[in-house]
Amino acid sequence: MTKKRIVIVGGVAGGATCAARLRRMDEEAEIVVLERGPYVSFANCGLPYYVGNVIQEESKLLLAWPTLFRERFNIEVRTRNEVLAINREASTVSVRDLETGREYSEPYDALVLSPGAAPIRPSWPGIDLPGIFTLRTVPDSREIRHWIDEKKPSKAVVVGGGFIGLEMAENLALRGITVTVVELANQVMPPLDLEMAEYPKQRLESRGVTLALVDAVAEFGQGSNGCLSVHTQSGMAYEADLVVLAIGVRPETMLARDAGLELGERGGIRINSQMRTSDPHIWAVGDAVEVRNRVTGQWELIPLAGLANRQGRVAADAICGRDVHFDGVLGTTVCGFFGLTVALTGATEKSLRRAGMVDFESIYLHPGHHVGYYPGAQPIHLKLLFRKSDGLVLGAQAVGEEGVARRIDVIATAIQMKATVFDLEETELCYAPQYGAAKDPVNMAGMIAANVVRGDAEIAPWDKLDSTEAFLLDVRQPNEFDAGSIPGSVNIPLGQLRSRLGELPTDKEIWVNCGVGQRAYYACRILAQHGLHVRNLSGGFSTYRVMRP
Amino acid sequence: MTKKRIVIVGGVAGGATCAARLRRMDEEAEIVVLERGPYVSFANCGLPYYVGNVIQEESKLLLAWPTLFRERFNIEVRTRNEVLAINREASTVSVRDLETGREYSEPYDALVLSPGAAPIRPSWPGIDLPGIFTLRTVPDSREIRHWIDEKKPSKAVVVGGGFIGLEMAENLALRGITVTVVELANQVMPPLDLEMAEYPKQRLESRGVTLALVDAVAEFGQGSNGCLSVHTQSGMAYEADLVVLAIGVRPETMLARDAGLELGERGGIRINSQMRTSDPHIWAVGDAVEVRNRVTGQWELIPLAGLANRQGRVAADAICGRDVHFDGVLGTTVCGFFGLTVALTGATEKSLRRAGMVDFESIYLHPGHHVGYYPGAQPIHLKLLFRKSDGLVLGAQAVGEEGVARRIDVIATAIQMKATVFDLEETELCYAPQYGAAKDPVNMAGMIAANVVRGDAEIAPWDKLDSTEAFLLDVRQPNEFDAGSIPGSVNIPLGQLRSRLGELPTDKEIWVNCGVGQRAYYACRILAQHGLHVRNLSGGFSTYRVMRP
Repeated sequence: MTKKRIVIVGGVAGGATCAARLRRMDEEAEIVVLERGPYVSFANCGLPYYVGNVIQEESKLLLAWPTLFRERFNIEVRTRNEVLAINREASTVSVRDLETGREYSEPYDALVLSPGAAPIRPSWPGIDLPGIFTLRTVPDSREIRHWIDEKKPSKAVVVGGGFIGLEMAENLALRGITVTVVELANQVMPPLDLEMAEYPKQRLESRGVTLALVDAVAEFGQGSNGCLSVHTQSGMAYEADLVVLAIGVRPETMLARDAGLELGERGGIRINSQMRTSDPHIWAVGDAVEVRNRVTGQWELIPLAGLANRQGRVAADAICGRDVHFDGVLGTTVCGFFGLTVALTGATEKSLRRAGMVDFESIYLHPGHHVGYYPGAQPIHLKLLFRKSDGLVLGAQAVGEEGVARRIDVIATAIQMKATVFDLEETELCYAPQYGAAKDPVNMAGMIAANVVRGDAEIAPWDKLDSTEAFLLDVRQPNEFDAGSIPGSVNIPLGQLRSRLGELPTDKEIWVNCGVGQRAYYACRILAQHGLHVRNLSGGFSTYRVMRP
Repeated sequence: MTKKRIVIVGGVAGGATCAARLRRMDEEAEIVVLERGPYVSFANCGLPYYVGNVIQEESKLLLAWPTLFRERFNIEVRTRNEVLAINREASTVSVRDLETGREYSEPYDALVLSPGAAPIRPSWPGIDLPGIFTLRTVPDSREIRHWIDEKKPSKAVVVGGGFIGLEMAENLALRGITVTVVELANQVMPPLDLEMAEYPKQRLESRGVTLALVDAVAEFGQGSNGCLSVHTQSGMAYEADLVVLAIGVRPETMLARDAGLELGERGGIRINSQMRTSDPHIWAVGDAVEVRNRVTGQWELIPLAGLANRQGRVAADAICGRDVHFDGVLGTTVCGFFGLTVALTGATEKSLRRAGMVDFESIYLHPGHHVGYYPGAQPIHLKLLFRKSDGLVLGAQAVGEEGVARRIDVIATAIQMKATVFDLEETELCYAPQYGAAKDPVNMAGMIAANVVRGDAEIAPWDKLDSTEAFLLDVRQPNEFDAGSIPGSVNIPLGQLRSRLGELPTDKEIWVNCGVGQRAYYACRILAQHGLHVRNLSGGFSTYRVMRP
């Protein structure tokens, strides 16, 4: 039996994981990793924090290096070696050594593509002016650091209000720089549903970040003092000593495309559940491939390190003949800035609508991250999406200062296991006063949603609030009502409701709201049992404030 | 149709939840809550923190009160009314008003028992001396606070090293009191497996708490200055200005027993999955009932507020004719003190052995709570138990400063959903540098365990280390080895292993260890593929240090 020869293109998350796993599965195989850049296995996700000097040493970003691969795994890693083409018929790749310029051919029995994705850098006028950066590699982050150290910029523009853009905004602010974020969408963090994006928006603004939403760069200019100006399509101009482009990444598919491998509808490499491309000898993993969303079934491009690692493992096992499968993604994501944590998993209302799914409902709640009687409780603003017909959990979004990732992780696990909202009601989570509540936010979400599925408490559609003819009932205390209420709503405090039923109409729907939805639920149960048609404005006035900011 | 009349005995967690839920299900029912104590719906779990003055106002501990029940739920709550007996034939309870001494009879259509559990207070000589307290109610905590404020104790003995005892130890320390904990078992926190209890033990000792393990109180004495002395069975005597008994609770079953209701093998009230007792008109919930462990199938007494609430809901729904079920418990528990969080869910090695289950394996790991390159990573010491034949997740225990509850919550959800270790491998959790790792500790645990189930990496049994004839191989770097190693082990660093295979025996097992288990796993894969018989000492030298403290 001859030794199997496996060539891996790209040595960061997916490629490095695949290489190491291959060795564990096959001690005999020859494994060669070809990496165009100077480093393998570096910490992409840490780059914004290196710019912000939260991570102070560049060496911390390097998680492994060629000698380690050699000694520990008997794997040959060649950095600064770029693969130029795949010759499928000969089962070789053409490689250029970027140090020497030498070109050579490398044979393979199995080829793994892990080329990653490149930051999008549109051909806007002036984009090549000094001081305009993207952030994808260690050298990128080093350049931005140097620029900050030398030029001492006081103003920066971040183009793109997604996760990386906002991490950059925080890290630039940490360096004492005033930041403006230009974002095409009408919200920050476009994967979030609009109303959930209101929390991070408010946090950013309260910390001095200027948000230019529904706007895009038209061109960059430069003054005589070297200062950049960012001209936008709306006609605004922002001065900047530094610009960071964070408008997303595009899968590196040139090699795959040139080799005639099948690409998907989103522009990534199309793979099967074993991470195999349309060529049976070629696998692909990481940011360059399209993955199936477990909830919506849609193909997506999700550039996350965790997925790249998992795919690298699956590809390695598949190459070694194991019957393994990559079952798709939930897209669980978390992002933190200015003390706030924003996280989501599974589907959003947006992604469900995009996928044409209509059998769903969403609920809102605002529980504390632990019991209120223990000092320091912080609200978690939580939106849960579930299938209305049977309660299958579809997705969740959460924002808050504490305990956010924990709840999203629990719900991610629940979605993976095809849990229903009835399962969430029963979830048995850690509770002591400083850690949670006897009814954890996840249980609360499950209970509220289960009430909907069981038909005990219908939800009023927030997006119809302006057009509804329903009677709007507010069951909070008068002092709460006086401090702010939904226009047109009538105040009957919960404690008086049973004795004032006569004031309510019997010929139309009653939409009930309170502070966060709990008292409204109690009210709904009272009214429903008296034969009235009621719906709960889920999340109450706390949700209203983000619906109508 | 006549109104249903429901009487609830006990108005704290389970009883209060049941009452409120009943009203939401049935607006017409008459609901009466009879509570012996002065308060309903108070925060038991907060009591140690009120003693420690972390919670400063007693009013914070009161979550609801009779007027709230009256106004919001139209429920009649009678505090200081003690139920003396159940007359099942007449469907009445005999009640004494503790304020007036009046005795009266209260009829019911449905009766819910939520009497809770009472702190165990053995008949040790001197137990009634002033300064010896238990902690179960708001007045209990008030008395201890007064004692601390007035007597300014400098030394305290806490009897019982379980969760409440250790919370008390921390809170007394917060008041400037030096604490000794007397515990019968050979470990603190007896539900934990012995080696996992070593972490909290070390933390307590490092913070100045004296631990008297494998010891028990023989008697209490009092000196002429009023100072107590705690004499133990081992012959030790500890001076104390204050003693808190925290040796567990006993279910309050007197009413149920006198009424001839079936009790279980652990001394709690026996219920079915609808929380119904052996009398079809009587339900029981909370600390007084026995519950079935979802993993081991054993009956257990688990006094936790979350379970009491859930049971109260189920009982209410069942009384209202709904087809609901309480599916048993995982016993998820968390406890924090001196900066450490200790949590567990599902089965422990102990509880599996007690249940006679043998088809299981356990693995250890010590990952950071987030990536190491981001500042501030803290280790999580994690033990995962799973069925060896198919990988079903059975239980987990974790200890660390950060991120512990989060991982136990994920695993609790996984166990509830009958996940396997293969599912844990794939769990898609929140990752950004400050929140976790691309391979989260839960993924790592899943991968290590899945390797065992797939037969890729066998685990060496730590408890056979002293008696094994296996060759002990340590693959760490020489400087690590020199700083401490398992006696008799031979050091061949991982990087040299392939070239030094000849030094290893082919005729016996090789047990491999490293720092935390990862390099040993790499070594195992190399050696196994060379035909050697290898096992990994899971968790490496980090686990060894707690196995051989």
